[in-house]
Formats: sequence, structure tokens, C-alpha cells
Amino acid sequence: MTILENAAELLGKVREQVPLVHNITNYVTVNDCANALLAIGGSPIMADDIAEAADITAISSALVLNMGTLNARTIQSMLEAGKKANELGIPVVFDPVGAGASALRNETAERILSQVKIAVLRGNLSEISFAAGLEVSPKGVDSSEADSNNDAAVVGRRAAEKYHCVAAVTGAVDVITDGKRVVRISNGHRMLSRVTGTGCMTSAITGAFAAAASREEHPDYLAAAAGSVASMGMAGELAYKKAGKTGTGSFHIAVIDALSCLDTEKMKEMGRFEEE
Amino acid sequence: MTILENAAELLGKVREQVPLVHNITNYVTVNDCANALLAIGGSPIMADDIAEAADITAISSALVLNMGTLNARTIQSMLEAGKKANELGIPVVFDPVGAGASALRNETAERILSQVKIAVLRGNLSEISFAAGLEVSPKGVDSSEADSNNDAAVVGRRAAEKYHCVAAVTGAVDVITDGKRVVRISNGHRMLSRVTGTGCMTSAITGAFAAAASREEHPDYLAAAAGSVASMGMAGELAYKKAGKTGTGSFHIAVIDALSCLDTEKMKEMGRFEEE
Amino acid sequence: MTILENAAELLGKVREQVPLVHNITNYVTVNDCANALLAIGGSPIMADDIAEAADITAISSALVLNMGTLNARTIQSMLEAGKKANELGIPVVFDPVGAGASALRNETAERILSQVKIAVLRGNLSEISFAAGLEVSPKGVDSSEADSNNDAAVVGRRAAEKYHCVAAVTGAVDVITDGKRVVRISNGHRMLSRVTGTGCMTSAITGAFAAAASREEHPDYLAAAAGSVASMGMAGELAYKKAGKTGTGSFHIAVIDALSCLDTEKMKEMGRFEEE
Repeated sequence: MTILENAAELLGKVREQVPLVHNITNYVTVNDCANALLAIGGSPIMADDIAEAADITAISSALVLNMGTLNARTIQSMLEAGKKANELGIPVVFDPVGAGASALRNETAERILSQVKIAVLRGNLSEISFAAGLEVSPKGVDSSEADSNNDAAVVGRRAAEKYHCVAAVTGAVDVITDGKRVVRISNGHRMLSRVTGTGCMTSAITGAFAAAASREEHPDYLAAAAGSVASMGMAGELAYKKAGKTGTGSFHIAVIDALSCLDTEKMKEMGRFEEE
Repeated sequence: MTILENAAELLGKVREQVPLVHNITNYVTVNDCANALLAIGGSPIMADDIAEAADITAISSALVLNMGTLNARTIQSMLEAGKKANELGIPVVFDPVGAGASALRNETAERILSQVKIAVLRGNLSEISFAAGLEVSPKGVDSSEADSNNDAAVVGRRAAEKYHCVAAVTGAVDVITDGKRVVRISNGHRMLSRVTGTGCMTSAITGAFAAAASREEHPDYLAAAAGSVASMGMAGELAYKKAGKTGTGSFHIAVIDALSCLDTEKMKEMGRFEEE
Repeated sequence: MTILENAAELLGKVREQVPLVHNITNYVTVNDCANALLAIGGSPIMADDIAEAADITAISSALVLNMGTLNARTIQSMLEAGKKANELGIPVVFDPVGAGASALRNETAERILSQVKIAVLRGNLSEISFAAGLEVSPKGVDSSEADSNNDAAVVGRRAAEKYHCVAAVTGAVDVITDGKRVVRISNGHRMLSRVTGTGCMTSAITGAFAAAASREEHPDYLAAAAGSVASMGMAGELAYKKAGKTGTGSFHIAVIDALSCLDTEKMKEMGRFEEE
């Protein structure tokens, strides 16, 4: 099977299994994360107090950690929930929002990556570059490491190798790699960047795809990440057709509509995947 | 007057009085709670710091406590605000979100229920079962206590008697009881469960209905709870007709639209209430 | 140039410059604040932990402080971020939500106003009256100070003089003043008050306009405040035409749509400004 076929099958399994996905995330986009998870067929639960974070992880099928609005209280909860997930074999998705932008974010990303085993690391080029330990300049990754065409693949591979995880570097073309296989996805629309939280929503639904993958004999988290990244890209294309001219508010709602209507067949038909 | 008639009259009073409703709630659905309150004719205020929670309750006409994303900081605020409300005769609505799912939620629900006098307790079958002190199994309430047809009524009555409150057990058919009277409401649409926060919004607007009821010589919190639960059910039906096929994003917006357009006449016309 | 022309030109500059605007705000309307900022052409960043607040301000082009859901943790962050902004010459917008409603809000507003130099103070008549040190009665400002026709101008001027800032008093007619010039803006629609956060969104986008103004040789924060207040007013008018009869949910989305479609020409055409 191709990665696209695998990803599309996982979408069907998400809809059948309705996995409970525990999110410790930011207060800016949390409502959209919950609604995106419901739209794709999962079931969201948000709980970030240290007194219950690990308990809630223990009853969930995946854990999503998102650094969007970090604070001292929730960092500890992320670490405890992450360790509990590792202990129980529950896949962890990590979105290092804003890594590189402040010392707090840098240190927290490093603590999570060193203490918790991650299944999928999802972020933009600058965030994944930071996680990979590469110098981040305003123009992107240091040019001695990579030229502009290969940035995302070089950075993704480096991060994937360093943390033995799947790295999903999202951008105009999304690059997803487990360090060996690389898939480039050309679905999406630039209007997605005019709505807050489309990255966070992608990470949240990656939790649902990872939960479905984790039930397979050989979990394929590359296909899981590709499935969620492609879902958001396709939702952006469909939403643009329907509401792109109306404005960003209607486009936002149309993205959720499209996620809720997506299925295995449509994903196979719309997917623009290139495997390396 | 029937309970439906009473509930519909309360809706009209909410729109006349525009009661200020203090919410200490979760960060996932709080924006929807505020907009649902505005849509139904109330005025929302959110304040959860211990340094002002009781002060804000004191200027409000109802208090809504929602455990959706508990943390140490807000639990104390809920207790203080609840006690202030009791002191001043302001009705309190309690939504024990996720009771049964973690020790923190269980303990907090118990603390609130033992220290604060509640006017309306609203939740799903599993949450109200926990509050009522019944064993909760994955299949629902322990079968020695209740069979599947009567679950909600048995559980609701038990909770209502235990806490001398109105219990609103929402589900495919909503059951609302003060321990003596029981009303079953068949309004609603299953698509409501594909949008996060429709339960939280119901609890929030219950605050507005309870505020209006509290001004009557003999406050009827059963009618208040029935009015808010029916409002959400009717909004779900109307929204499904308008946007059900478009997707869950448009359906979500249509629910708020429908709440904002609902009135006494429409409620009387659409209500599917069965009194026992 | 008129203030309207200046304001409209600033909108064009926001769209060209895409200023990064740091918001320390409430969890009720934060998603709308981020989406309103994106819609008007800015770039939002939310960060409220004391360990990074000043760092994030330092990389931003404006700072917006909003007291909507105050807590002990974020008050300190607001003060530190505000001081850093002052140090670096980054304009600060302050929205004293609910000033007058609790001792905590009163004290916090006073601490911020005494420790941080504000470029634009935006609120309703009651909030700005409190900030100006005027007695606030349930009917508005004490009548010995101002009659009902002049309330907003008297209050605005007093606040502007006291804090050497621009005061934007929003209401049916918005009054914006730097203590000398006064502009009255009649754009808007009363349905804006039936959606939570339209005031918060106005403050958030004021950050984007202030950022653009700060790059000019002689920053005109009166024009900046007028531009953002007018943007929301025009968005309300356009949204009402499109979705006013459908309900408050659709109206809410149409407001964001309208913000995202507004441009310099349309603002000049629609503006109903009266300069004094």
C-alpha cells in the first residue's frame, strides 16, 4: 500500500474507533482543537492540572502536548502525562509552538523531548529546526546545513533521527519523515495561515490518527501524521472553494465542515503525495 | 400551567430581565457559553480568581459552576463563589463535567455538592450517577439499581433527593426531576454531540433561566432547567434542518443562531414534553 | 489629512507590515482576538507566563493588555510586559475590562495605569470613567461632572489628560480623544453587543494600528485608535446587512469576514467621523 492509501485507511479507522484523545494545549485554539477532533471522528478530552493529568492520559488512546500558551503549572502536567503515556504505550504527539521564540519555550521543548518519547513531532520549519538542534536564522535554517529547497527534508530527517520519531514539517509543501521514508504533501491552501490554530488543529487530529495506528500490529506513525496533515490540507482546499472569497470567518467554519465530511475515498482521490 | 408553558414564559422573562450570570467554567467552551448566554437573552460574566470570585457573584443573578478544566486555583474560587451565592439567595447551577473520570473530579464534585446548596445539577447519565453516589460502570449505572429504560429517571430522582435540588440528566431523551415531578423532553438532535460544549452551553443558559425563576414568589427550578434543556434541544433541531448536511462547523454556528431567535411562542409550539 | 484619511492609510500599512502583536488577555475571547488580528492584517502572539512575557513583548511591535479574566499569575506578567514595552518604545494598548466591578479589577487597573505608559486606553463609558477617577453610578458618570450628552467626551478628555494617552470610549457613538482633538465615530450596529468580545477584538486590532502608527515620524495614536474602532463599527454594519436576521452566530462570523475584507478605500467611503 502507498502511504496515501495507509493514511486514508487510518481515517476510516478513526471514524470507527472514535479514540479518546487527551490534549494539554493552549487556551487560544483549544475550542477549535476539540471541534476538529470531533469533526475527524475522535473524542477530545482536555485536562491540565497536575492532580489529574496522568489519570486522564491513562484512560485515553493518545496524548497531544502543545506549547502554545505555556505556564509553570501546565509544563509539569505535560511531563507527567507524557511519562504516563510512555509507560502505557500510548502514542504522544508534540507541537513545540513557538520554539525558538523565548527561553521558556526553548527549555520546555528540550525538557519534553529529553524526558518523553514522542511518536510524532509536528511544527513549522522554524520550530522543528529548533527541536533538531539546528541554528535558526530569520531566513530559516542556516544555509551551511541546507539550501532553501531541501530545508524541510533535511530538518525533518535530523529531528526524526535525533528523537526516533516521525517529524512533520508543515508549510506550503508539507514534509513528513521517519528518518528513512520521506513523503511530501502538496495539499493545502495559503488561506489556512489567516486563521489561528490550523497548526494546533492538525496536531490535535494527529492524536486521533496516531491512536488508530497504535492498534495495528506494526504502527505506522508516518502514515498517521501524513493522514492528519493531508486532512487539514484538503479541508483548506475545500473550504477555499466554498468560502474563500467570503472572508476568513466563513473560511474558518468551512474548514471544520470539510474535516467533518472527509472520508477514506475522498482522501484517496484528493491526495497529492510524493514518496521518496 | 404545564411545565412547558412555565418554561416558555421563563424564556420571555430572561429576554426582558437580561440577567447577569457569573460563570466559573472551563477554557475549552467558555466563548460558546458566553455567546449562548447572550443569544438566549442573558448577560455573561466570567471571573475565576479567588480575589474577586465572590465579589462578582454578589453582583450577579445566578452562578454557574462547571468542572470542565479543573485546577487548584479555580476549585477554591468555585467554593467561595458558591457560598456567597447561597448567602445571598442567588441560584447556583452545577455541571460536574467528567465526574467519575479522575480522582480530582470526583473529590471536587463531592466538595462542591457538600458545601454549596445547588439549585440545578446538570450532566449526562454517567456524571449524575456519580453525583448520586451510584456505581458507574462502562455500560452505565449498575444494573441492580436500574434497568436501561429507567436509568435516567432513577438516577435523577436519587440525585434530586440527595441534594434537594433539580437534577437534569441530558441524553437522547432528557429527564428532569425535582425528586417528585419528572419531565421527559424529546427535543434535540444527535448531531449536538459532534460539537464540543453543547452540554456546557446548556448549563450556562440554565443560569439565565434560574435567575428569572428566582424572581418569582415560588421559584420553579424544574421549569427553569426544562426551559434551558429544551432551548438547546430545539436549537439542535433547527440547526440540523438548516446546516446539518453542510458539516459540524456550520451546524455549530446555526445552534447559536437558533438560540438567538427562539421565543416563548416557538418554544410552546416545538416542545415535546412528557410530564409524569 | 483628516483623521479618517489617516486612519484609513494606517489600515493599509497594517496590511503591508503584518505587525506582530503581543496580547495578554482573557480566555473567553482570546480566539476571536487572534482571528480579528489576522483578519485586519496583523499577526497575533499570546503569552502570559512571567517567565516569557517580557521576552515575547521584546520581539513584538505592540502590546495589548486586557483585564477580562484577571488572575494573580497574569497581573504580574502584564506589569513586566508593559515595562519592557515602555523601555523599548513599543506602544501599549490597555483595555480595563470590568474596571469598577470588583476591588481586584480596580486595583489592577490602577497598578497598570500608574506603572505602565499607555498609548491607547480603550473601554466603555463606565470603565474609562473609573480609570479617569470619576464616580461611577449605575446610571453612568456622576451628573455633577457631566451631562448625558457629553459624558463620553468629558470622561475621555479627563482620562487622556490624566495618563497622557489617547482614550477611546466606545458606545453607540464612539468618542476618541487625545485630550485636545476629539473625534466622534458613528459607525457600528447595536447587534455587536450581542456577541461577546467585540470590545476585546477592537482593543486587539488597536494593537496592530498602533504598531503601524509607531513607525511614523510622528506617531498619531488618535488616528490608530480611530482606525481600529471604525474597523469594528464598519464590520458590524456590513455583518448586519449580510447576517443580521439569521442570528447572532452568523453575525459573529460575518464580523470577522468583514474585517478581513476591509481596505483603505472602503474605510474612507464608509467612515462617519466628526472632528472637533
